[in-house]
Amino acid sequence: MSNMNQVRSFDAVSGVIVAEAGCILESLNNYLIPHGSMMPLDLGAKGSCHIGGNLASNAGGLRLLRYGSLHGSTLGLEVVLPDGTILNNLATLRKDNTGYDLKQLFIGSEGTLGIITAASILTPQLPKAVNVAFLGVKDYQAVQTVFRRARQELSEILSAFEFIDEESMRLVKIHASLRDPLSDSFPFYILIETHGSNKEHDDEKLSSLLEKLMEEEIVQDGVVAQDETQVTSLWKYREFIPEAVSKHGKTYKYDLSIPLPSLYQVVEKIRVHLESQGVFDPKSESGLIRAVTGYGHVGDGNLHLNVVASEVSPRVAAALEPYVYELTSSYQGSISAEHGLGFQKAEYLKYSKSPEMIKLMQITKKQYDPQGILNPYKYLPTLE
Amino acid sequence: MSNMNQVRSFDAVSGVIVAEAGCILESLNNYLIPHGSMMPLDLGAKGSCHIGGNLASNAGGLRLLRYGSLHGSTLGLEVVLPDGTILNNLATLRKDNTGYDLKQLFIGSEGTLGIITAASILTPQLPKAVNVAFLGVKDYQAVQTVFRRARQELSEILSAFEFIDEESMRLVKIHASLRDPLSDSFPFYILIETHGSNKEHDDEKLSSLLEKLMEEEIVQDGVVAQDETQVTSLWKYREFIPEAVSKHGKTYKYDLSIPLPSLYQVVEKIRVHLESQGVFDPKSESGLIRAVTGYGHVGDGNLHLNVVASEVSPRVAAALEPYVYELTSSYQGSISAEHGLGFQKAEYLKYSKSPEMIKLMQITKKQYDPQGILNPYKYLPTLE
Repeated sequence: MSNMNQVRSFDAVSGVIVAEAGCILESLNNYLIPHGSMMPLDLGAKGSCHIGGNLASNAGGLRLLRYGSLHGSTLGLEVVLPDGTILNNLATLRKDNTGYDLKQLFIGSEGTLGIITAASILTPQLPKAVNVAFLGVKDYQAVQTVFRRARQELSEILSAFEFIDEESMRLVKIHASLRDPLSDSFPFYILIETHGSNKEHDDEKLSSLLEKLMEEEIVQDGVVAQDETQVTSLWKYREFIPEAVSKHGKTYKYDLSIPLPSLYQVVEKIRVHLESQGVFDPKSESGLIRAVTGYGHVGDGNLHLNVVASEVSPRVAAALEPYVYELTSSYQGSISAEHGLGFQKAEYLKYSKSPEMIKLMQITKKQYDPQGILNPYKYLPTLE
Repeated sequence: MSNMNQVRSFDAVSGVIVAEAGCILESLNNYLIPHGSMMPLDLGAKGSCHIGGNLASNAGGLRLLRYGSLHGSTLGLEVVLPDGTILNNLATLRKDNTGYDLKQLFIGSEGTLGIITAASILTPQLPKAVNVAFLGVKDYQAVQTVFRRARQELSEILSAFEFIDEESMRLVKIHASLRDPLSDSFPFYILIETHGSNKEHDDEKLSSLLEKLMEEEIVQDGVVAQDETQVTSLWKYREFIPEAVSKHGKTYKYDLSIPLPSLYQVVEKIRVHLESQGVFDPKSESGLIRAVTGYGHVGDGNLHLNVVASEVSPRVAAALEPYVYELTSSYQGSISAEHGLGFQKAEYLKYSKSPEMIKLMQITKKQYDPQGILNPYKYLPTLE
């Protein structure tokens, strides 16, 4: 879709942009900044990913916590159906209760029902002030407490809440040659970001929260960015993790949604399980598996679980799957929070969706694409 | 569904509530308040409407501007299909990219695809501070300017932006025996509400904005609520309009979405049209039509157009329809912003949706409800 890369319109009063599918996410953001707006989603791949692909894969990213999902911010889509019909539903209205909200089906359908060619999206105000705090805490319970308190006290300015476990930080320090952000190592790190319209107010809210959390000894250590450069450098600890993990060995990546209270139990249980399977020694890197790390958008209940092995091996795969999916299912979690199903996870859908749901999905696919010409063999399990 | 009125669970950390369809919206809100949360939607009928009905009709309400639509805040649904199948999709996860987001189809489907029996909904923080300002401006252009400035400067704390035209206010003053809220009459009134976590900060943001708007003579007069009682009494001018209009005569109500820049032109054009049809005299109440009023959620582009006639008459109906729908269509608007289609508007769907969209909707209806037993004769135009 690279050639369909035009912004068709932008209305500064309502904040609605109509853009073609091949627009690069970062280019759209750059287009919006002079108008005082921004895209509602932000992700690592922003410099190369297309908005059409973001929509087709229902990309989540770093600030879903604040700006919501694409199911909420997409106002309209233009879609080409498998038979060539152009479905023009490029409304720029926030409210429209005329019929089934069909566009929602295409968001996250990974190109299996139709090809998104353009979208109208509601864009939020560009924040005038951005703050970042980086904290160290002693256990996962504290991560949850800090999240709850941040929701209560930062409330409308909270824009991201990320967590990093000690093992993820260890790999970042090895491969990014970054210094320890805090005075010591901690079992868990938290990155809190705020987006607001008044720097003084935001500073006051954030420092008041941190003061209380330190006093109550919920947070052991912390640092607040003093300027834009420090905002960027604190984010680096979080943003560099995927690269650090890849540099450390062959990585098995899982993108899970788990109800918040149980989120980190998943990482712990997988470590125990892999140890019992004889492929992991939590005290050294001598096993087939060198590291099991957990980090992610804890504010959204989204865990990125990365298992780093010394080599790609059937033994590692067998130790991991279907165990990871069964475990996720036992927590009523999702086996794909934001990365989608694609080819690899089509057959594992049953761990997150009931047979009735899967059946309806297959009927939907058949209705829109009776010949099965769009992204075949992907997304849904093969019909029995 | 009145007997299915239990809250199944609430998680205070994530803010997710799972409630049965027969729960009354206000009861859910009262349940959440002690936990520091609130329902993401609020509407006049909150004391009697069921959350299942809100979902089935995709209710919008007063604060969609801030808290988004139910398509964004609903995380899961439990639905009974026409053949008795229970579709269990009551996930409490914010992110879940496993398959088509089928629950979206039921939101706003007015019970034509299945019966919603329970829902899991993400609830926002209860604001610690609520402010209301009531302003008078000289034209619709100023309404737009104030909206744009409010978005820029109140940004994250803006929770409602309503407008009332002079004619709506005239009826409120007659029927509610309310005093003029401001020192004089104005062509347009604006109600701005803020929800925030720090009263001092919010007061400062709001008064700074109002000061500038008065200085620049964009706003002619204004008043800010000094306490909770005044918040309630300022909202009364807006909330009483539907009742005032009904007391004034037989009302023809339209609930339209119109792109913001053209929103009030619709009211003006309809007045001119009705005058040309000989049923309305804008200078007196002598015609068949006594008043044409416009008010609503301007922040969402949602116009409530009310035409008050001395009697229900085919002449009034013929003067209004299909003119109102044609006019809405000419602005790429929606003939039903938040009220839905039901029986009355099923045949008018074509004014807001293309033939391709309507055809797909009819196929969808057929797929889910092949016998046509759910809400027959409603929602979609009859197949030709």
